[in-house]
Amino acid sequence: MEEEIKKQLDFLIEIDKMKTVFRRSYIYTGGRRENDAEHSWHVAVMAMVLADCAGDRDMDLNKVIRMLLVHDLIEVYAGDTFAYDAAGNLDKKSREEAAADRLYALLPGDQGARYRALWEEFDREETPEAKYAAAMDRLQPLISNWLNQGATWREGHVALEQVWRRMAPVKTGTPRLWGLVEEIVTDAAEKGYIQ
Amino acid sequence: MEEEIKKQLDFLIEIDKMKTVFRRSYIYTGGRRENDAEHSWHVAVMAMVLADCAGDRDMDLNKVIRMLLVHDLIEVYAGDTFAYDAAGNLDKKSREEAAADRLYALLPGDQGARYRALWEEFDREETPEAKYAAAMDRLQPLISNWLNQGATWREGHVALEQVWRRMAPVKTGTPRLWGLVEEIVTDAAEKGYIQ
Repeated sequence: MEEEIKKQLDFLIEIDKMKTVFRRSYIYTGGRRENDAEHSWHVAVMAMVLADCAGDRDMDLNKVIRMLLVHDLIEVYAGDTFAYDAAGNLDKKSREEAAADRLYALLPGDQGARYRALWEEFDREETPEAKYAAAMDRLQPLISNWLNQGATWREGHVALEQVWRRMAPVKTGTPRLWGLVEEIVTDAAEKGYIQ
Repeated sequence: MEEEIKKQLDFLIEIDKMKTVFRRSYIYTGGRRENDAEHSWHVAVMAMVLADCAGDRDMDLNKVIRMLLVHDLIEVYAGDTFAYDAAGNLDKKSREEAAADRLYALLPGDQGARYRALWEEFDREETPEAKYAAAMDRLQPLISNWLNQGATWREGHVALEQVWRRMAPVKTGTPRLWGLVEEIVTDAAEKGYIQ
C-alpha cells in the first residue's frame, strides 16, 4: 500500500470515533442523544437546503459544506463541550488545539493543515462562509430542543436569555432565518420548555 | 414563517430519521450497526480525503460530496436494502422511486428535483462523479468488515467471489485504490473473515 494512502486510511479509521462522541442534543425523534457524525451530516445537508437564506449570497457553499463536515473532528480527542458549560468552555480552546495537533498529524503532506484551517476559519466566525456555517450549527440543535420539549435546556438549567444569546449568530449569518428562530424560541418559552 | 422556509424545515426534520435507519455494517470500533446519517457523513469525508485517487482527476469533487450527503435519503421511507440480499434487491428500485416521490415533494420549487437528480446520477454510476462516489460507498463498509472480523459477511453468508464483485466499482472509480482493496480482501480471506 502506498504510504500516502496508508496515512489517509489511518485517519479515516480514527475519525470513525465521531460516531461515539455524544452531544447534549437529542435526535429529532427523541429517545437518545445524537453523536458528532450524525450532527455533522445533518448541518451539512441543512447548509445545502437553506443556502438561499445565507446573508452573503456570494459565499462559497461548497466551502461551507466541507467546513461543516470537519468542524467537530477534533472532538474525537477533545470530546463534546456543552455550549452552556462555563467551566468546560474555559479550557476548551487548549484541549481542542492539542486534539487538532494530534489528529491532523495523521494525514500526509499539507492535507491536515488544510482541514485544520477550515476548522479554525469556522471557529473564528469571521468570513461569510464561517458565519453561515455557525448559523447552521446553532439552528440544528435549536430545532432538536424544540421537538424534544427543551430536553437539553431543562437538563442544563439553561435560561431564556442564554438561548437568545446562543442564537445570535443566526441573525448575523442568515438574517432571513431569524424569524424562524424567533418563532421557535418564543413558542418553546410559551410552552415552558425554557425556564 | 415564509412558506418556502416552512417546507425546508419540514424536510430537514423528516430526514433526521436517517439517524434511525440502520445498515448491516458496524461502526469501525464495533459493538453496534451504523446508521445512514453516520455512513453518509463518513463517505463524504472519505471522498474529500481520497480525492487525489479519483480515476478522473477533472471530476467535480463538490458535486461528489453533495451526492454522497443525499445518496441514501430515500431510505428514510424505503429502508436499507442489504447489498447481498437478492430478494430485497428485486423490488429495491420501485420502493426507492416511491420513497423519492414522497420525500422530495416536501421541498419547495425545483429543489427536490435537484437532489433527486443527484441521487439518480449516483445510482446510474455513469458520470466520473457517480463512479467515484460509488467507490467510496463500497470502500467504507469494506473497511468496517475488515476491522470487525467480517461481521456482516458472516451474518449474511457472503462468499469471497461476491465480495470481489461488490468491490468492482472501486477499480473503475479509483484505480489507485484497487491495491488497497486487494490487500484488505486478501487479508480478510486469509484470516477466515470470508467463507
